[in-house]
Amino acid sequence: MSSLFVLPPECLLQPFPVPQRLMLGPGPSNVPTRIAAAGAQPMLGPPIMNQVKSGIQYAFQTRNRVTLAVSGPGHAAMDCAIFNSLEPGENESCQWHMWREGAKMNTVVTSAGGYFTNEGIEQINTVVFFLTHGESSTGVVHPTDGIGDLCHKYNCLFLVDSVAALGGTPICIDEQGIDIMYTGSQKVLNAPPGTAPISFSERACQKIFNRRTKPISYFLDMSWLANYWGCDDNFHHTGPVSSFYGLRESLAILAETGLENSWKWHKALAEYFHKGLEEMGLKLFVQDTNARLPTVTTIVAPPGYDWREITGYIMKTYNIEISGGIGPSAGMVLCVGLMGCNSSKANVEKVLEALADALKHCHKSRV
Amino acid sequence: MSSLFVLPPECLLQPFPVPQRLMLGPGPSNVPTRIAAAGAQPMLGPPIMNQVKSGIQYAFQTRNRVTLAVSGPGHAAMDCAIFNSLEPGENESCQWHMWREGAKMNTVVTSAGGYFTNEGIEQINTVVFFLTHGESSTGVVHPTDGIGDLCHKYNCLFLVDSVAALGGTPICIDEQGIDIMYTGSQKVLNAPPGTAPISFSERACQKIFNRRTKPISYFLDMSWLANYWGCDDNFHHTGPVSSFYGLRESLAILAETGLENSWKWHKALAEYFHKGLEEMGLKLFVQDTNARLPTVTTIVAPPGYDWREITGYIMKTYNIEISGGIGPSAGMVLCVGLMGCNSSKANVEKVLEALADALKHCHKSRV
Repeated sequence: MSSLFVLPPECLLQPFPVPQRLMLGPGPSNVPTRIAAAGAQPMLGPPIMNQVKSGIQYAFQTRNRVTLAVSGPGHAAMDCAIFNSLEPGENESCQWHMWREGAKMNTVVTSAGGYFTNEGIEQINTVVFFLTHGESSTGVVHPTDGIGDLCHKYNCLFLVDSVAALGGTPICIDEQGIDIMYTGSQKVLNAPPGTAPISFSERACQKIFNRRTKPISYFLDMSWLANYWGCDDNFHHTGPVSSFYGLRESLAILAETGLENSWKWHKALAEYFHKGLEEMGLKLFVQDTNARLPTVTTIVAPPGYDWREITGYIMKTYNIEISGGIGPSAGMVLCVGLMGCNSSKANVEKVLEALADALKHCHKSRV
Repeated sequence: MSSLFVLPPECLLQPFPVPQRLMLGPGPSNVPTRIAAAGAQPMLGPPIMNQVKSGIQYAFQTRNRVTLAVSGPGHAAMDCAIFNSLEPGENESCQWHMWREGAKMNTVVTSAGGYFTNEGIEQINTVVFFLTHGESSTGVVHPTDGIGDLCHKYNCLFLVDSVAALGGTPICIDEQGIDIMYTGSQKVLNAPPGTAPISFSERACQKIFNRRTKPISYFLDMSWLANYWGCDDNFHHTGPVSSFYGLRESLAILAETGLENSWKWHKALAEYFHKGLEEMGLKLFVQDTNARLPTVTTIVAPPGYDWREITGYIMKTYNIEISGGIGPSAGMVLCVGLMGCNSSKANVEKVLEALADALKHCHKSRV
């Protein structure tokens, strides 16, 4: 081999100054020093994994033995849930194919900011019913009671994405008959992104561990992952141990705080924030007060303004990150996340002040 | 919902004391304070991602524009390479199916500790030729020169796993015609596990971005990942930013050290270690000195001993982690990793002393 032609990059030969910022978008949220410090510890595997597992069982309110953290973001957990629970043959090829072709699996559409009724859900014919609990794009917390029973009546698994909601609003997966649920580390839990708690009911395990075919992914194959988290000697992959330390610490904070206190706190803070917004003349995007997600608030984009100018002004002037909509709410809302340690009165007041100031200083056209 | 029935776990309500240990197994290796501290920084995305990209281009010696870090361990990068480069139809269903059924894709088997010749490789008929550069189970560094040309002659992509070797032994992917290569963060790079650098040649991109079907995984779909790392506004998933800080710092250390110095250093240290082992009467598993992986040394399991007793004694007495074999070398070897910051004369002397002591104190049967 001749000598190197790609030289050491200049940007790596000098220190990288990391700016501070208050992160009040729909996540990731700020990481408290205690959690960050835990992630900087030396790395040893199994004992920490058992603690993480107990912490997830508490946060999810489950006795499911197959409870673990996927070594990736929430979207890896989504892939994991789908790869393992669906098989070619049983309706799957169509559903799966549609899924990856961009259409959704047996979609039932409701208006952005609304939610489904259980009567509507009963019309759906599917093997796995996949629901987002906390819909951060629209700010809706979807009701979950009764859906598990409905699904089981039709021999269907109930799969829930609670990335943006877990810890901030009630969900108890055993009691509610949820078969698979996952969340992310970077929202209410305030850990760095990169690990995703997931849990499978006995009913889900029955299906997953009696597959005719192996799931397409080696990395996300539950027959390996479940063994790995059972801490036997089978090597599967090198777990992100530093991230597990951070996750352990975030679950410890939740255990110390108490799950119910965390729910109450997020709800009270969200209501306090919503009141402040309405007093300022802003409108909430989700009309039904019971359907408002406490962790992520969507505000109707103020008429006459360019929402990008507002978020840009707040970032530049206040060093606070808030965001616009995404997907169904793109261009329609401003999104403010108040999750875990970021859910504080002081932060509510900061962001209200920043919004009021932005409305004064940003350009407003006649509506 | 009634009150919580899963109570806060006791293990989370007390601090978790993390033991210190010298990790000289086949990886993960110890994380220097500088890298650990970088991972504990506040989290902001895009600027760090560009730096990580440059660092990987340097470490891989490539100008490939599609160069990034997968948000998961090396096995996620393996899935990423395969999911994106193979398609149903073109031979794939058979290969892929075989792969997930436990057989290997068009396997050519050589003896454990040996390697393939280019003449042998030319007999293989496949769409993607997948080679492990540094085989940590056997301690072999596989020759890579000439294989790229062979592959391209038959319109085949050359895919290399360099998890255990990158940074410790020469590889220059553009020069050697490698189409896809990935590594892990936790070996020579000394960053915590959880991110996996990967790069795709123009030839690989031609195939990947002109697929007829979408890859099965959303999380690992390169058409999204490449956009995400191009830092446009498309949200794909929440990247493990803390891990990217750690990875950036580890790549910075490599850039400061110089890749060629790192290669030379690992080679010299491995030779120093091998000499010490032979002087002690131990035998190296890989006979061909040129095929010895400098980062992971495999020692023939000393006859008459139980290798588990040796690794256990060294862990208990010296707090040093070394390991036995895995897969083809299970029961046959002791494995010692000397990677990145762990590749030091002091560590070589520590592990030689520990081995000599273990051979004195562990039970030896008559051979």
